[in-house]
Amino acid sequence: MGDDCARVAPAEGFELAVTTDMLVEGRHFLPGADPRALGHKALAVNLSDLAAAGATPRWIMLALCLRDADEAWLGAFSAGLYALAERHDVDLVGGDTTRGTVLTIAITAFGEVPAGRALSRAGAGLDDDIWVSGALGGAALALMHPELEEAARRLHQPQPRVGLGERLRGIASAAIDVSDGLAGDLGHILERSQVGARVSYDDVPKDVSFAGLNEPETERRCVLSGGDDYELLFTAAKAKRKDIAALSREMDLPLTRIGSIEAEAGLRIVDGAGRPVPFGSGFDHFAAL
Amino acid sequence: MGDDCARVAPAEGFELAVTTDMLVEGRHFLPGADPRALGHKALAVNLSDLAAAGATPRWIMLALCLRDADEAWLGAFSAGLYALAERHDVDLVGGDTTRGTVLTIAITAFGEVPAGRALSRAGAGLDDDIWVSGALGGAALALMHPELEEAARRLHQPQPRVGLGERLRGIASAAIDVSDGLAGDLGHILERSQVGARVSYDDVPKDVSFAGLNEPETERRCVLSGGDDYELLFTAAKAKRKDIAALSREMDLPLTRIGSIEAEAGLRIVDGAGRPVPFGSGFDHFAAL
Repeated sequence: MGDDCARVAPAEGFELAVTTDMLVEGRHFLPGADPRALGHKALAVNLSDLAAAGATPRWIMLALCLRDADEAWLGAFSAGLYALAERHDVDLVGGDTTRGTVLTIAITAFGEVPAGRALSRAGAGLDDDIWVSGALGGAALALMHPELEEAARRLHQPQPRVGLGERLRGIASAAIDVSDGLAGDLGHILERSQVGARVSYDDVPKDVSFAGLNEPETERRCVLSGGDDYELLFTAAKAKRKDIAALSREMDLPLTRIGSIEAEAGLRIVDGAGRPVPFGSGFDHFAAL
Repeated sequence: MGDDCARVAPAEGFELAVTTDMLVEGRHFLPGADPRALGHKALAVNLSDLAAAGATPRWIMLALCLRDADEAWLGAFSAGLYALAERHDVDLVGGDTTRGTVLTIAITAFGEVPAGRALSRAGAGLDDDIWVSGALGGAALALMHPELEEAARRLHQPQPRVGLGERLRGIASAAIDVSDGLAGDLGHILERSQVGARVSYDDVPKDVSFAGLNEPETERRCVLSGGDDYELLFTAAKAKRKDIAALSREMDLPLTRIGSIEAEAGLRIVDGAGRPVPFGSGFDHFAAL
């Protein structure tokens, strides 16, 4: 801090995984959003990308466009950001602050990963299992039902699966974080890996908040096409099932097998009777307008 | 590209210098600004920070908030950005695109520098000379006199002093790029180096566009407190004068000695008769509103 540039270097034998995400008021959060939650989330979405690469978070740069120099707002935003940063031993090494009419937060995050061992979207192989951590759909549900407290926590306080990402190095063949929705994000893996997939909808772990709702259409849309869950979606060879079960127990984190990779291109999601379950193509910032 | 993270690693014995800058419509550029010039400038301001660190640019990440998916705009913006990127052999390795009401561009740039040899603002020593590259004030002048073509080029097409920054490793004791104005940026060096300085106003190289103007007040304000020139301001021991003169000839770039570092804190700018020349404290995004 205090120089034109920050200086960072990975440890010997490691390389850097780098990601950048921009959050824009009115687009990714509402005007008047709780600044503490915003500080948390702005960092969480970046750490989630590092987790999907199997990288250990190390440093961040923060570019911030503020409407005014509101110290209370900045204090709360920083508190939310720093609390999550400290939990993952991440240092803020630089940034840029400017002023404008629309609150905008751009974070670039750097993680370390052993050279050549980062997880990517491109490695899914034929007959690999498809896995997902935690449960899906809660964040999207919170947009429709803000009164559901647990779902709201999923939306506003996502927990990036950093520890899981690190442990998946050498286990997962491909990985991505669920930021755009299961169908869309799995689609990214399939496209980059040049394979297809079949997913059993009944097996997809659904957020606990759906239990009392009895809104199957809402549930389907949130679980398959809702974004912002920041769980990890990954593929792994069948031979890794025992390792993954052990990892799930050790981390006290549900890891659920939801389908498998197939040669036929495209994604098929089916119900218990083998009938196709419809799904959107995930969240597209331009299409959604 | 195409993964959650990009992967980068400095060569052995090198570390990464990293910088981020955010440009906001209505703040850093006017609505309707030429997209090609904007693409150039958004990258140039970041490469200028790398130059001030003595780093060789390598990679960039681009976060972009667009009003709409205007392909002509994006094509021109990309052309401007890529033309400068190619000139410096810089690769775009990742990014994030979103949509909003205010066009916003955040670039994070990565450069390589031999470990421990980056230039910083903190190394200015007693009796060091103070130097500046090129000429100052042109960009600020263009804001007042948009009809002056050469000044306009300084504002819209700044040339980051990348080659000079690399060559100043081992020569300069401290460096910064002139983005906020000479007085403000020299102030940053003085503060971080815990020294003071005396600058001869007559010796400060002034943009050629001032020659025919005969507006000494405008000139003084633009040269001392105008930002956006992206020249390098640096200090060096007196023993380096010959090296710097040789470098200037070799690079065909004026490098001008404008003052010296003193023990007494603060910055004194004086005219030919030794009288104080008033100056502002540089451009402050918040104070300026």
